[in-house]
Amino acid sequence: MTFHDRPIGIFDSGVGGLTVLRALRERLPTEQLLYLGDTARLPYGTKSPETIARYAVQAAGLLVGRGIKLLVVACNTASAHALDALRDAYPQIEVTGVIEPGAEAACAASASGRIAVIATESTARAGAYEAAIRRIRGDAEIATRACSVFVALAEEGWLDGPVAEAAARRYLAPLFADKDAGSRPDTLVLGCTHFPLLSPVLETVVGPGVVLVDSARTTADRVALMLDRAGVASRNVHFPAEIRLLATDAPDRFARVAANFLPFPITPAMVELVDLQQASPAAGPARPSRPLEV
Amino acid sequence: MTFHDRPIGIFDSGVGGLTVLRALRERLPTEQLLYLGDTARLPYGTKSPETIARYAVQAAGLLVGRGIKLLVVACNTASAHALDALRDAYPQIEVTGVIEPGAEAACAASASGRIAVIATESTARAGAYEAAIRRIRGDAEIATRACSVFVALAEEGWLDGPVAEAAARRYLAPLFADKDAGSRPDTLVLGCTHFPLLSPVLETVVGPGVVLVDSARTTADRVALMLDRAGVASRNVHFPAEIRLLATDAPDRFARVAANFLPFPITPAMVELVDLQQASPAAGPARPSRPLEV
Repeated sequence: MTFHDRPIGIFDSGVGGLTVLRALRERLPTEQLLYLGDTARLPYGTKSPETIARYAVQAAGLLVGRGIKLLVVACNTASAHALDALRDAYPQIEVTGVIEPGAEAACAASASGRIAVIATESTARAGAYEAAIRRIRGDAEIATRACSVFVALAEEGWLDGPVAEAAARRYLAPLFADKDAGSRPDTLVLGCTHFPLLSPVLETVVGPGVVLVDSARTTADRVALMLDRAGVASRNVHFPAEIRLLATDAPDRFARVAANFLPFPITPAMVELVDLQQASPAAGPARPSRPLEV
Repeated sequence: MTFHDRPIGIFDSGVGGLTVLRALRERLPTEQLLYLGDTARLPYGTKSPETIARYAVQAAGLLVGRGIKLLVVACNTASAHALDALRDAYPQIEVTGVIEPGAEAACAASASGRIAVIATESTARAGAYEAAIRRIRGDAEIATRACSVFVALAEEGWLDGPVAEAAARRYLAPLFADKDAGSRPDTLVLGCTHFPLLSPVLETVVGPGVVLVDSARTTADRVALMLDRAGVASRNVHFPAEIRLLATDAPDRFARVAANFLPFPITPAMVELVDLQQASPAAGPARPSRPLEV
């Protein structure tokens, strides 16, 4: 297998990163995708930075051991806390998170420089989006809010209706509706991979004139650019290329919740259960798992 | 230290079991309480039965190593999947979960025999309450519903207001409001330790004539009975006895969320960070941690 033909590795604490997998599939249909959800240890959003970095390095090691050509950290929390540790641990692999692409897209979208960010507790507390946005646009006015309940709603499949609307109003009114036009943000960054599922209800609550930035799509653009620059884009002319899904626990639940994130049905048989305790980058070539044709 | 003077160990995946700690403190004010929240690996409710049992045995080992006299599994999910494994691993310690006391209380409360159970996904799927209720009352009509979003609401502190009301209506209307009086349950078991926090809004939604069974209180009654029978109740005449709180990750978040569960403020300094990888039952006597006076 030449380097070009290797899969892109995508790593998340659970199913949320499937929004990134979906965007990559749409943007790069000839690239093989190998997705790992660390479902045994989710959610990362409530854990300490040290624990998150340790878990991410361990999970990425399994993907590296299976011969990926590039690693996408499709988890905002891990992107906030683990990128340096991952680059140190696997210098042979290019790594991208979702925060920098999201920050770039937000700065491009915002006319006023007033940007709101919604995220998990841990990402919000880390201030990772603020830092990334300020590196591009030093004068940006950034308001960040942790929205933990949105994760539960996305996983439950409650993407619209009275509960999602009431939660969106409770979280977002202080940032939007309760502000006058002169201080209201014109851009809302969805700083958790679960949140794009709630886009329709979020758009209703923030009102017209606010751009929603979905970092899944902007991350897929970044990956396309990285592959081109490194000259390692797939030379495969057949598509769609193969997708493989790995989880560290409860493949049946993974399959069920994944149905909220993907435009095709997933059965538990399509999800391979892996054990991170026994995996290591030295483990050799990929073991066969049942591929998923999309 | 005589056996009587040893603490009661309380174990949960996170903060939810603090509703049981609170009930124990009210019922048994002279008993020392040692609480462990396995926050590094929460939530258990979405994990597989095998993983839950393995985590519970490891976590309980730390409490046994610190010399507890009795173990309360203050987590419905672990009570559903780990009691046998815990009794096998630590035969020297009496163990109780929260499900049997809750089932007994439900059977005592229900006149009609129609009982509704709300729980996490894993507890609901395991059918643990159904089995425990049927052992007592074979002809019970039991309806069970997984209510994952309630956990997120309790941890966010959204205990009332439009989000909690809309979520309660969405989960519970099919069990109560949408049924005629002849088939409506007369008892609702709160089969997750987080749910008692939502009792006021749940009472509003199910309407009058439905008894809410909070297994925290019934578990405290069971513990009092077990201590009496074994002759190992505390002989301490001073109260309140000491409480110690342990967590496996993020003590700052533990302290913040614990404030929703306890009637007194908790600071991160009151929460001792412990490492289950290094702990073992052979680790010897309790290390000093800062006690919590209540």
